[in-house]
Amino acid sequence: MGKVEIRMDFKEELKKYQEIVNKHLEEYINKEKCPEELLNQSVEYSLMAGGKRLRPILVIATYELFKKDIETCMSYAIALEMIHNFSLIHDDLPGIDNDDFRHGKPTNHKQFNEATAILAGDRLLNNAYIVISEELKKSEKEELPKKIKILEEFSKAVNQMIVGEFVDTEFEGKQISEKYLEYIHKNKTGALIILAVRMGAMLANASEEDLKRLTSYAEKIGLAFQIKDDILSEEGNQEILGKPVGNDKRLEKCTYVSKYGLEKAKEILNGIIKEATEELEIYGEKAQFLIELANYIENRNK
Amino acid sequence: MGKVEIRMDFKEELKKYQEIVNKHLEEYINKEKCPEELLNQSVEYSLMAGGKRLRPILVIATYELFKKDIETCMSYAIALEMIHNFSLIHDDLPGIDNDDFRHGKPTNHKQFNEATAILAGDRLLNNAYIVISEELKKSEKEELPKKIKILEEFSKAVNQMIVGEFVDTEFEGKQISEKYLEYIHKNKTGALIILAVRMGAMLANASEEDLKRLTSYAEKIGLAFQIKDDILSEEGNQEILGKPVGNDKRLEKCTYVSKYGLEKAKEILNGIIKEATEELEIYGEKAQFLIELANYIENRNK
Repeated sequence: MGKVEIRMDFKEELKKYQEIVNKHLEEYINKEKCPEELLNQSVEYSLMAGGKRLRPILVIATYELFKKDIETCMSYAIALEMIHNFSLIHDDLPGIDNDDFRHGKPTNHKQFNEATAILAGDRLLNNAYIVISEELKKSEKEELPKKIKILEEFSKAVNQMIVGEFVDTEFEGKQISEKYLEYIHKNKTGALIILAVRMGAMLANASEEDLKRLTSYAEKIGLAFQIKDDILSEEGNQEILGKPVGNDKRLEKCTYVSKYGLEKAKEILNGIIKEATEELEIYGEKAQFLIELANYIENRNK
Repeated sequence: MGKVEIRMDFKEELKKYQEIVNKHLEEYINKEKCPEELLNQSVEYSLMAGGKRLRPILVIATYELFKKDIETCMSYAIALEMIHNFSLIHDDLPGIDNDDFRHGKPTNHKQFNEATAILAGDRLLNNAYIVISEELKKSEKEELPKKIKILEEFSKAVNQMIVGEFVDTEFEGKQISEKYLEYIHKNKTGALIILAVRMGAMLANASEEDLKRLTSYAEKIGLAFQIKDDILSEEGNQEILGKPVGNDKRLEKCTYVSKYGLEKAKEILNGIIKEATEELEIYGEKAQFLIELANYIENRNK
């Protein structure tokens, strides 16, 4: 995965990262099979449904700013992707967002049933900690204080995400202040994206200064990601997105689009992405993938 | 909490343990408040609903077989109680058991709503790991390998519990083989009870031999606990239990009572409790509380 002399096309590089993540997720799935085939299928169905793998890729690409041996960060990368997928399964449930489609396929509870979806989500959330505890057990003693700090950040970011989702649910169909809209975005989406970048940096022993700079990059792309999601929910292509467009409007969800209108939301998004990429200029060539990833967040169509 | 010369009445001692656990849970609740009052209320509602605190008490009482400074094991004790409560909230959901009452009060989703109950359960599951990671951060370096092993056992036992609940759900309304009935009991209830005892022993640096003996005690009381639950669901007092009696029959759940009949189930229960207490004879006086706790599991009316 080291950078080659002549840079590959960004999309090709992104695909390479996705394949690495998928390979490790498949290894996890094969290793962690429980005796209940249907529960395994339900976990695998969501985990391998073709997500973008943004969070684990951020872990790896940030790690690569400083170090090459990416195997060191893979457990944390896939644990994070498991958390992300747990949150999707639970958010889609009839009791929360009641969504029927995700990545162009029926949501977990539609494909299986509600009980299976609840328990598959619980299992993914919990098993992220199995993956991390197994990694800790194999770690060198001198690495443990750093990794325990990462575990703490990990668990606190997951808590933030759950609280963010709760507030999002609470405000459905209600007028929302700018303050709360930011609060939801920061917690529901931002927390795991910031965690991804910080884990990559901390695992690679980045300096405090680097960590601060990269955290700022992550805060900005996290917000940008959510604004872009809001925009896609409004004007995206349903077939490409794999889920219904206009759902936010139907549920009267609070979004950047409903708050500021489509054009202004795009303007805000563009400004934030610019700020994010400026944070990385100091790293030169090495940061090219992370810069392009920020641009990809702005320009993606799903 | 040290044992006094003249033993207190068992019920009084049990109450003392419960008060210690409740005090620590309240401290956690006050410390971990998120900005969302309703989500805090929902977590507190279930966590402080008056459970027996069997699991955390087993951690503490097992620890006390070897050591006195119980503060050392309190984080693990309350993390385990949080896991237990997460599982109750999710199991009660309409998509799983669809129960309306628990501890004589409306279940979490009845008191609040489904979204809140799902997310409060997620939060409890996840925050158990916050509690443990904070404890690890404060630990002496030389304690870490042992405690990381405990974290791994913890996460794997939670996984077992989730899988057990899944199988229980799967078999609703179906004929079940003895093998599967045991499988459900071992995983759904047994895993956390075994974990409780093993954590107490490991935290107190018990020998391998002690650990083996105590694991056997835990396996037996775990099975006994579930058989007694099945019996109470059949012939318990609805007002004392705080939940409807005969629910298992309504849902055609597989239980020891539906499998063996009431009398035979009681006979099996009695035999298992005897075996459990025999494991502890070697510890003499010191094990009196754990022996009486086994008898309490057999004779409890809620």
